[in-house]
Amino acid sequence: MSKPLILVTNDDGITAPGLRALIRFMGDLGEVVVVAPDSPQSGKGHAITIDDTLFSTKVTVDQLHGAPKEYSCSGTPADCVKLGLQVILDRKPDICVSGINHGSNSSINVIYSGTMSAAIEAGIEGIPAIGFSLLDYSWNADFEQAGPAIKKIVRQSLKKGMPEGVVLNVNIPKLSKENIKGIKVCRQARANWKEKFDHRTSPMGKDYYWLTGEFELLDKGEDTDEWALANGYISVVPTQFDLTAHHAIQNLNTWNLNE
Amino acid sequence: MSKPLILVTNDDGITAPGLRALIRFMGDLGEVVVVAPDSPQSGKGHAITIDDTLFSTKVTVDQLHGAPKEYSCSGTPADCVKLGLQVILDRKPDICVSGINHGSNSSINVIYSGTMSAAIEAGIEGIPAIGFSLLDYSWNADFEQAGPAIKKIVRQSLKKGMPEGVVLNVNIPKLSKENIKGIKVCRQARANWKEKFDHRTSPMGKDYYWLTGEFELLDKGEDTDEWALANGYISVVPTQFDLTAHHAIQNLNTWNLNE
Repeated sequence: MSKPLILVTNDDGITAPGLRALIRFMGDLGEVVVVAPDSPQSGKGHAITIDDTLFSTKVTVDQLHGAPKEYSCSGTPADCVKLGLQVILDRKPDICVSGINHGSNSSINVIYSGTMSAAIEAGIEGIPAIGFSLLDYSWNADFEQAGPAIKKIVRQSLKKGMPEGVVLNVNIPKLSKENIKGIKVCRQARANWKEKFDHRTSPMGKDYYWLTGEFELLDKGEDTDEWALANGYISVVPTQFDLTAHHAIQNLNTWNLNE
Repeated sequence: MSKPLILVTNDDGITAPGLRALIRFMGDLGEVVVVAPDSPQSGKGHAITIDDTLFSTKVTVDQLHGAPKEYSCSGTPADCVKLGLQVILDRKPDICVSGINHGSNSSINVIYSGTMSAAIEAGIEGIPAIGFSLLDYSWNADFEQAGPAIKKIVRQSLKKGMPEGVVLNVNIPKLSKENIKGIKVCRQARANWKEKFDHRTSPMGKDYYWLTGEFELLDKGEDTDEWALANGYISVVPTQFDLTAHHAIQNLNTWNLNE
């Protein structure tokens, strides 16, 4: 049996330590091709580049075992996946992994996440896909601790196959290997950000703002990703791109919009 | 009773005819405040501006009845909603409407849509929200035809209240008022884009690509937004931002990730 083909991408950019760690881990499991943004793309959500040119270049970032093929791309994470699948790879990958993100993509953060948008883009195209994030925003975060769990999740995904229309959102607590209690399948916690805009005035007298905010957990459930992470578990949320709120269709039909 | 406060935004930018039409329609229903991007933001998905400054300016774009307060913002549609709610408005709006988008946001397009990301952002913050899109990409599309239906949907939303965790994705066929058959509550059709990258070389010898593609409908259901639109109906899809694939949790628990 040939080695599985693994497409690796991220949103922090091709030189990010989180990506370099994920490439190393995937080198143990299959043939790795990297297509990653040439600059940080955090908070880009599911943006795509429709009104601008996309540049892509074969690069060598560092000497890793397994000698992955690597391409940088001037676009967003979703662009990287599209370009990877359509232009760079000569066959369909067996799986697409995105990350490891420097920072959490749990609960409502999934909506804003470039890491997860790459996984979702691959999922839309029928490829098993997983986004990985570590709860440590530091550039020098210790990604090694997450290696065994990440490899286990990817191995099982390759073996079991992904449920249709689903990608995985995996978040990893900032703990040493020994202190991680296990892996929990969860639902996305209800949460939002309480924005605070930091209002300033430029030297030229123009008002401007910095977006800052505080995370607000609105969910006391013990079956959520936030609970799992707070209690030392890795969270795995099956995430879908059919956004239909099926349960609300009946309710809306009572609105009698055609009368 | 005081008039409802209506926050209006879009992703095509504050001067887009689709937005100007929506502002006019909303002027018949309540007090309108506009916070919209100062430049086109199509395809921006749920991007937010976390590593750059946000500028916002009070502007007068045209003389509309109801004298809406208008602010342009240098950010994405989701930024506009955050800034509107947190900085510009002095009370919580009764509803947020986004659009009218120049072009479809049906089926999988919801994922890439700046129009819908604004509505979703408002929904996350607990505000009833609707994205409107017309199936006509032309800058000079005839938005007037959609007026009566849009006002009906907004009136009913204000009256009935939005189901929790749900925003509406409304798409309108390119038809005259008389030829629109009605309004249908639908589910998001399964579809994707078959990308085609147009590969070119710059005068300096650098490879680059334009992202193009063909829409591929993978769904024969007659309860989908695509079916409704193809058959002359306005589609209304209840859209959620809990992305958990609840049906897949049991399946993933059989993966025995902790063994």
